[in-house]
Amino acid sequence: MLDLYAFSTPNSVRIPIALEEMGLDYRLHAVNLRKGAQKSPEHLARNPNGKVPVLIDNEGPDGAPFTLTESGAILLYLAEKTGKLIPTDAFDRARVIEQMLFHLTGISPALGQLGNFRRAEDRLPAAISLFEAETARTLTLLDGILGQRRFVAGEDYTVADITHFGWLWRREFAMVSLDPYANIRRWYAAVEARSAVQRGTGAVTALLPA
Amino acid sequence: MLDLYAFSTPNSVRIPIALEEMGLDYRLHAVNLRKGAQKSPEHLARNPNGKVPVLIDNEGPDGAPFTLTESGAILLYLAEKTGKLIPTDAFDRARVIEQMLFHLTGISPALGQLGNFRRAEDRLPAAISLFEAETARTLTLLDGILGQRRFVAGEDYTVADITHFGWLWRREFAMVSLDPYANIRRWYAAVEARSAVQRGTGAVTALLPA
Repeated sequence: MLDLYAFSTPNSVRIPIALEEMGLDYRLHAVNLRKGAQKSPEHLARNPNGKVPVLIDNEGPDGAPFTLTESGAILLYLAEKTGKLIPTDAFDRARVIEQMLFHLTGISPALGQLGNFRRAEDRLPAAISLFEAETARTLTLLDGILGQRRFVAGEDYTVADITHFGWLWRREFAMVSLDPYANIRRWYAAVEARSAVQRGTGAVTALLPA
Repeated sequence: MLDLYAFSTPNSVRIPIALEEMGLDYRLHAVNLRKGAQKSPEHLARNPNGKVPVLIDNEGPDGAPFTLTESGAILLYLAEKTGKLIPTDAFDRARVIEQMLFHLTGISPALGQLGNFRRAEDRLPAAISLFEAETARTLTLLDGILGQRRFVAGEDYTVADITHFGWLWRREFAMVSLDPYANIRRWYAAVEARSAVQRGTGAVTALLPA
């Protein structure tokens, strides 16, 4: 059995989506970021970095629980475990990981910092401009890629699509619109329509207190 | 044969280090970032993201060249190709990828943004403070990990160590000292002493114009 500690965040949502796509059973536990639960001693024991998601695979090495952090690492672990949502060919796999890293080191920090600086009480227009430009630059690149490929790493839906989807699903945090990006919109609609994606986003949304 | 397009940067240096460790032949080509060569039409054809490093494996699918970007993706591709610097056990592999992502999404952006804001003409003290705090927080976490393990993902040296090393080797860009971090210093000295690391850092340093 798998235990997932998560909340309704761009990084968290990737994991229920993947688990639903892969047909794996899991228990979902809320870590309420609005109450700072990610910094509680309980959660820091799971992840000293104080972040979600955290996956615990209760069938770890020698039957002991295996705790894993970093949503990208969790996605690749689950893909290896099941043989799903990742190609077997070495070149195709490299393309998937390249797209995951383009997202995690390019689009994600741009959107994250843009949201942080736009929402900060102490307004820093120069920082906002910087991250607006980087957001537009990286989304334009993604739009170009999706003009050439059906999914982000090729013709098949993979964990790289799930990686990109998390932040784009939560783009209102950064107050960003997909209107200028026709190819991203086409891809986003196709991903969002998947029943596993609806179950995954529904599961983390249900973690929000009423 | 492999062609590597790179410069003397935290992200670039990882690849010659890995290639030297793995005993792979490669040709190293300078992309002079000081002259903006990463934005030249030639380089954008290799990587529309305008970044280094870029690896071209001339023995790609059906014998065609295979172009790969993102240093983390390149490291994992080379590790898979050679079976070196990555464990075979699924749990141990996940730990390696977790550490790579902790670096690439935690330490690297903290150091990168700290350097950018400290060196910006338009000084934003609030942004500097923010990234100083995040740098100290993430390096303290790494120091804690290295208090428990010989290398960042366990007892063996892996591509995760090479991932962390790149930015710590270039820490003067962010004007950061390792003095407060005894475990990181112990690990850094061990990595730096490896002959492949010396050849790799020497190779990218030699790309700098005299």
